[in-house]
Amino acid sequence: MPNKSSVTGEPHFESRFGTVAILGVGLIGGSLGMALKARRLAHRVVGVGRDPARLEKAVALGAADAVTTDWPEGLGQADVVVLCTTVSHILASLPDVLAVVKPGAVVTDVGSTKSAIVRQAAGAPHFVGSHPMAGSEKGGVEAATPTLFQEATWALTPTDTTDPEALERIRMLAQEVGASTRVFTPEAHDAMVAVTSHLPHVMASAFMRHAARTRETYPDTPSLSAGSFADMTRIAASSPDIWRDVCLSNRDAVLDALSGFRADLDVLEAAVDAGDAAAIEAFFAEGAQAKRDWGSV
Amino acid sequence: MPNKSSVTGEPHFESRFGTVAILGVGLIGGSLGMALKARRLAHRVVGVGRDPARLEKAVALGAADAVTTDWPEGLGQADVVVLCTTVSHILASLPDVLAVVKPGAVVTDVGSTKSAIVRQAAGAPHFVGSHPMAGSEKGGVEAATPTLFQEATWALTPTDTTDPEALERIRMLAQEVGASTRVFTPEAHDAMVAVTSHLPHVMASAFMRHAARTRETYPDTPSLSAGSFADMTRIAASSPDIWRDVCLSNRDAVLDALSGFRADLDVLEAAVDAGDAAAIEAFFAEGAQAKRDWGSV
Repeated sequence: MPNKSSVTGEPHFESRFGTVAILGVGLIGGSLGMALKARRLAHRVVGVGRDPARLEKAVALGAADAVTTDWPEGLGQADVVVLCTTVSHILASLPDVLAVVKPGAVVTDVGSTKSAIVRQAAGAPHFVGSHPMAGSEKGGVEAATPTLFQEATWALTPTDTTDPEALERIRMLAQEVGASTRVFTPEAHDAMVAVTSHLPHVMASAFMRHAARTRETYPDTPSLSAGSFADMTRIAASSPDIWRDVCLSNRDAVLDALSGFRADLDVLEAAVDAGDAAAIEAFFAEGAQAKRDWGSV
Repeated sequence: MPNKSSVTGEPHFESRFGTVAILGVGLIGGSLGMALKARRLAHRVVGVGRDPARLEKAVALGAADAVTTDWPEGLGQADVVVLCTTVSHILASLPDVLAVVKPGAVVTDVGSTKSAIVRQAAGAPHFVGSHPMAGSEKGGVEAATPTLFQEATWALTPTDTTDPEALERIRMLAQEVGASTRVFTPEAHDAMVAVTSHLPHVMASAFMRHAARTRETYPDTPSLSAGSFADMTRIAASSPDIWRDVCLSNRDAVLDALSGFRADLDVLEAAVDAGDAAAIEAFFAEGAQAKRDWGSV
């Protein structure tokens, strides 16, 4: 039920997005619920999931007004439905979700890959694929925060069949919780995040595995790991099922990114093998220049 | 000249290490000078280098009591000499340094690789190879800080010919500026840091180069780079000449580290290519487990 005891009172915001149902109240879904509630953007935030204990925790942490494990009931009452589960779950459930939402309801998802999900929506005009570039190696609603989306980019991936008003609704939702929105084709989005996000996770895990093998030979290796090691391995702690899904659903772009990265490793390896000082220095200088040109992240 | 106007007065520390000469007053050398002066560990800190303007800046920033471009004079008066230039400069100058220091003076260096440098010292008993695991992608005395070595590991790499008292002197120096010391053979040190430090720098530069090429195709790529990208590329901004020297002087260990890392990329690439969900998940799960087992860095 709507909270009638508003103290600051901004009634035109009270139900800007009506009833918002969030499927999967983890880090992203929980943070979205908190942000919507903190800014009084929703008439009501309904958390939908499978695990009653997790749902109760979401309420206790202020991420939802109400919760249910009955997802047709939970999603069917909503004006905006946000799918915040894993990519594989979004792919599996999307047809059913689109079948139970009420007429005019807008559906979006926050999956890290977009082409496969948008294909699965099969041209539904009120579905808008989206992806907030925000997260943490820590998962779960315990790590959720209403400020997660501030200064983040939230990518939107409409298609030719997307209803412009549906796109506008999700764009406003993303902006109202603090994000900057950018519109891309699903394919361009997937090619870019394969490099900026998926490849880093592959690198971090591969590097951490190799470091663990080195430690088998030299047990003191952790004592010689400092800031660069910490940077390179932070995201190795991320949830394996999320990155399994990303690799499966964005297979070609991930393989392309890996191949491109390997080509740069080849350059350095050949230069070191040959003892070519100028080529080694050029390799690092070009990397440093690219970093300067990139701007702050 | 010694500072006679001590306000706190801890005379037994005033000249614990006598006159300390630092060759190369950049980030590491400058931070060491600041730490020695802040803790009153040296009778006098003498900065030695080529560029008078940089040396004057070191004095102005409190990294040295006196400076000189005449390095035989600067090093010849010292009880402890610390070589803080690049690995290639240390390799080139070490024989001359050992020839001009006064009898009984202890010489150490802070280069990132140790085998080649220790070989270059040719068994000199008062030379102790060392390596503080502290740094920054920002170079220069402007980035120096007296707290740089706090909670850092400072590796020591003595050999059979190293004088035990010389080793003890450098061990105390490292500990007095806040570091924890560990003793390794030069070869073990180099194999470990090839993985924990050198490979991360190669990865960061290779990744940044590939990201820059991706941007040529998709100019909006920077807008989709977030925390994981920032982590993976911070050290790509490091000084190219430092990493050139590391790759040249630690060639075999760097090539071994690259080869091992590539073997892990192979595992993931084959699993993604085959669409093998269980193998992909196992890859990430093993990386996450290794990260948990590593402990905090």
